[in-house]
Amino acid sequence: MYKWMKDLFPVCRSLTGSGVDETLNYLKNTIGIKFKILKFKSGKKVFDWTVPKVWNIKDGYIKTIKGKKIINFKNNNLHVVGYSTPINKIVSKQELLKHVFTQPDQPKWIPYVTSYYKKNWGFCISENFKKKIKDKKYKVYIDSSHKNGNLKIAETFIKGEKNKEIFFSTYFCHPSMASDNLSAVIVQSALIKYINENYKKTKFSYRFIFIPETVGSIAYLSKNLLNLKKNMVAGFNLSCVGDDRCYSHVESRNGNNLADQALEVALLGKKNKKRYSFLHRGSDERQYCAPGIDLPVCGFSRSKFGEYKEYHTSADNLDITSEKSLQNSLSILISIVDAFESELTPITKIKGEPQLSKYNLYPTTSQKGTKKKGSFSKQEFINRCNVIAYSDGKKNIFEISKITNIPLKDLIKEIKILKENKILR
Amino acid sequence: MYKWMKDLFPVCRSLTGSGVDETLNYLKNTIGIKFKILKFKSGKKVFDWTVPKVWNIKDGYIKTIKGKKIINFKNNNLHVVGYSTPINKIVSKQELLKHVFTQPDQPKWIPYVTSYYKKNWGFCISENFKKKIKDKKYKVYIDSSHKNGNLKIAETFIKGEKNKEIFFSTYFCHPSMASDNLSAVIVQSALIKYINENYKKTKFSYRFIFIPETVGSIAYLSKNLLNLKKNMVAGFNLSCVGDDRCYSHVESRNGNNLADQALEVALLGKKNKKRYSFLHRGSDERQYCAPGIDLPVCGFSRSKFGEYKEYHTSADNLDITSEKSLQNSLSILISIVDAFESELTPITKIKGEPQLSKYNLYPTTSQKGTKKKGSFSKQEFINRCNVIAYSDGKKNIFEISKITNIPLKDLIKEIKILKENKILR
Amino acid sequence: MYKWMKDLFPVCRSLTGSGVDETLNYLKNTIGIKFKILKFKSGKKVFDWTVPKVWNIKDGYIKTIKGKKIINFKNNNLHVVGYSTPINKIVSKQELLKHVFTQPDQPKWIPYVTSYYKKNWGFCISENFKKKIKDKKYKVYIDSSHKNGNLKIAETFIKGEKNKEIFFSTYFCHPSMASDNLSAVIVQSALIKYINENYKKTKFSYRFIFIPETVGSIAYLSKNLLNLKKNMVAGFNLSCVGDDRCYSHVESRNGNNLADQALEVALLGKKNKKRYSFLHRGSDERQYCAPGIDLPVCGFSRSKFGEYKEYHTSADNLDITSEKSLQNSLSILISIVDAFESELTPITKIKGEPQLSKYNLYPTTSQKGTKKKGSFSKQEFINRCNVIAYSDGKKNIFEISKITNIPLKDLIKEIKILKENKILR
Repeated sequence: MYKWMKDLFPVCRSLTGSGVDETLNYLKNTIGIKFKILKFKSGKKVFDWTVPKVWNIKDGYIKTIKGKKIINFKNNNLHVVGYSTPINKIVSKQELLKHVFTQPDQPKWIPYVTSYYKKNWGFCISENFKKKIKDKKYKVYIDSSHKNGNLKIAETFIKGEKNKEIFFSTYFCHPSMASDNLSAVIVQSALIKYINENYKKTKFSYRFIFIPETVGSIAYLSKNLLNLKKNMVAGFNLSCVGDDRCYSHVESRNGNNLADQALEVALLGKKNKKRYSFLHRGSDERQYCAPGIDLPVCGFSRSKFGEYKEYHTSADNLDITSEKSLQNSLSILISIVDAFESELTPITKIKGEPQLSKYNLYPTTSQKGTKKKGSFSKQEFINRCNVIAYSDGKKNIFEISKITNIPLKDLIKEIKILKENKILR
Repeated sequence: MYKWMKDLFPVCRSLTGSGVDETLNYLKNTIGIKFKILKFKSGKKVFDWTVPKVWNIKDGYIKTIKGKKIINFKNNNLHVVGYSTPINKIVSKQELLKHVFTQPDQPKWIPYVTSYYKKNWGFCISENFKKKIKDKKYKVYIDSSHKNGNLKIAETFIKGEKNKEIFFSTYFCHPSMASDNLSAVIVQSALIKYINENYKKTKFSYRFIFIPETVGSIAYLSKNLLNLKKNMVAGFNLSCVGDDRCYSHVESRNGNNLADQALEVALLGKKNKKRYSFLHRGSDERQYCAPGIDLPVCGFSRSKFGEYKEYHTSADNLDITSEKSLQNSLSILISIVDAFESELTPITKIKGEPQLSKYNLYPTTSQKGTKKKGSFSKQEFINRCNVIAYSDGKKNIFEISKITNIPLKDLIKEIKILKENKILR
Repeated sequence: MYKWMKDLFPVCRSLTGSGVDETLNYLKNTIGIKFKILKFKSGKKVFDWTVPKVWNIKDGYIKTIKGKKIINFKNNNLHVVGYSTPINKIVSKQELLKHVFTQPDQPKWIPYVTSYYKKNWGFCISENFKKKIKDKKYKVYIDSSHKNGNLKIAETFIKGEKNKEIFFSTYFCHPSMASDNLSAVIVQSALIKYINENYKKTKFSYRFIFIPETVGSIAYLSKNLLNLKKNMVAGFNLSCVGDDRCYSHVESRNGNNLADQALEVALLGKKNKKRYSFLHRGSDERQYCAPGIDLPVCGFSRSKFGEYKEYHTSADNLDITSEKSLQNSLSILISIVDAFESELTPITKIKGEPQLSKYNLYPTTSQKGTKKKGSFSKQEFINRCNVIAYSDGKKNIFEISKITNIPLKDLIKEIKILKENKILR
């Protein structure tokens, strides 16, 4: 995955435009993800919002009057404010400074700034560089365009035996930042590959969307809400899954829907995990859980948006992520998928406890304190009894995991054994 | 309000009698409260109770044989036991002491003692003074009467657009004590004035009763229970709201009805607040929440009955209260009324998040960490988003305040803005 | 009870066999318990299990070649593995050690080991003794038999006014160990005697079963599940009630059914009490709460199985129990029975608070801080008011005890007074 990160990192993505196309083409051609593209025309009303024009940018710089480029979009695409209007002008230092954004508390880093819905031009530079702006005049140049066109959403749907579906959403609209949010675009792609490669036919259907944040989810919901309400059993918004410092769960508004339950136990045993209430939302869970929408979606992040120092700056680069951290993120999602594909609500076939020794699943000699119980460890044996005891057809696999403290992977394995022995249905 | 306190403090109130009439006349003529008087005849059965006779007292003293008045009711009306029978007799020191009540652990103060339902005569004096009773004989004189008449309840009803009503109850039966309970008679009166002066027509109806404690609420309920059960959405029993040491919430038996929810968040941010379970009840919430009654009533106090040292003694005087403390009590009740009059269960008109920038309610440029978001503070902006996110038509304004930690006053203001912008219905 | 303990301690009990008959005969003839015997034939399928053959043992020893008995079943019936096959053979030291069980971490004690469902022979000895086994050959002798016959369950049913029943279950299948589980056989018997001697006719019906653990409860359930589902309102599995070190509550799977509520408050005020979730189950609550069974049963123990050092060893002998500890266990169960026989769901007859002074149940003079309220203590008076306030016909006696913190015995007494005064129905 790190290779894909490196390839896609330099692309200048935004809500719309050629950077989006380039990114989606890479997912399709290099990673091998199949999806269909949904298009929403500029100016179209979607709920309370309006689809913006397509923004493209070819170049952008600040030059001294002597012709020296001191700031160059081609060096770092954060240098130009997202959706900046074009400009080509000699401006006074004073006027330039009105259009320059810095992050004064992080003076070495370039901040990420957008102005999607108010026309403005601007440059983002480090606070340290700003202090060097001392000439009376500068030439500013931004070669950008805002044209009617399409906002694009890529959607992959894996049809399972049931129409009931598990939903994943992530956003591709951020330019060159690694954890926020190229990491989640990559990890979501890897999850699609995992399912395709490991399941011939899934029980549940799986839906994945790659969207521009906020207006993208609004547009998508405006068209698909009824179907999602009907079929979605759990959904996950993926955001900032690139670093390895912690695991974060942003609760749905409900706080304990099936997605919350799933993510909670998928993080069982992780040391540095953080759970945020919906009050600390910030990505598209805002839309999925809004009143009137109320889909069972929670948010999954590693260091959460707004909670790590490199967030929304040029320091959120490839250095803060790694193949290992991406694999760790992916493995959480895989355990959730595997759990849904195991048995969502296990139920015993037997009244009372089964006579496990008949199945060679129980020690034949009973004595206290022994670590090994026949061919399996004492913990394995306790887990087995607990899985049976709580498989009452009312608790789902995530609730059973939580009650019994059995990690999802072990629980999935045990359910498989018990089903093979016809102890569970 | 403190002026009214001073005027009414000296009046000798009891369950019944001329002190009650004098107090109610003052509320009507000086403060300007309109009410109707409900009358219950002495001897009438009200649920398990019987309406007592009307008690009046003109004078009362203990004299030495030489004719010196050493205890005089006219100096402090706590000196005679409430509902004391008349007496006019020379008694031995020994007999006198059987009829003398002191508070040995608070030797300077006169205790407040009543004997409503057992015929007895008695004097209340300080423990220190008791030690000076050394003569062999004393003359005791109490000029009181118990006659058939009416127990009186004053009721103010403000008819709103709905029949659903908010209920307030307080008791006037305590003689010269300031926090318990003249303060609540005054604050309840001020609340009536507030509503009349600030609302032309309220959404909810408001009912206020001034009663003698216990037998008064029993009598009132015996006549009005069906109507109260039908229309009351929340009720508050006001008791001991005179001092400024803390804010107390005495839970309903249910513990989390609408009144509890309202009072809980009305106290949001108050530093010295105390929440008592229904096990610590003591005023008329005992009746309103009794089995078979079960009205949604909780109790509001500052230092709660039984929890401040001056309680039920001569030290509960005008010194422990002030205009400021009374205003603080009133402002809690006003915030509750204003919340009911705002929007009890707000609901958004828009699916997904509204595009707040369209309404000039959102910053147009997005950058992390900035304190000001356009013309409003970051906290204002966070509050706005949270009000919208939780206005799902299922949560009431008090629950939203609790979840989002937004004080009622700010929440009411924000709901107003969002309704004006047609974002909330 | 300690006398009964001493009489029955030496008997070699198991799932089946003559030790069971001897024990049940003692309960019947010496203690005077009436019961009927339910029989399940060897080989019969009961749910997932099969009723085992009847095991009897006459003798068992290890002899040196010179003829000295070094281990003798007649000295301690733990020496032979439960359900051991017969053997009569000279074996090498090496082979003998394969059939010898010790508890290495408790080197002085003989462990309790069974092999019910796998044919095997074996001896249990102390780790210290094992070290003395140095000869090349030994003679091993076990005179045991496995024959077709009946697994037996003793059942006592006390018919009350209602068919709704309270259920008690304990197991007799353990050989010479005192707390686990002779103590519970004795205490359950004493409880039957208590009810017979103290109630002419009970309100609820009471059912008591004495069974072999696991297969016994499975067999019993396989025949009586429908009736139990229909009538059982609460059930208690008694296990290890012999010592006096603590009181233990093993929760039902539900965790808060009527039995859990009852046991919780029966232990109110006990200092060393422990509450275990169903994850820490181990006795027949495993069957009663299994999916598909789901009876409202929890477990009562003193030091719980697996939680005291003498558990399942020869050290669980008469020294760790006493008449006092058995009486303490019994008194918990008595308080539960008395509560069921008092008024399960008390309800007031009076709207609002009753005028307690009419009934001489309230002080006639009201003054703060006095310890005595007329003829009763302040705490008695507070308890009285609380019992009335919470007797709303929705809360059961155990919930009222928990909310008000009134011990069951006091609560039962107070309910009696209030019923006599026609304040409670």
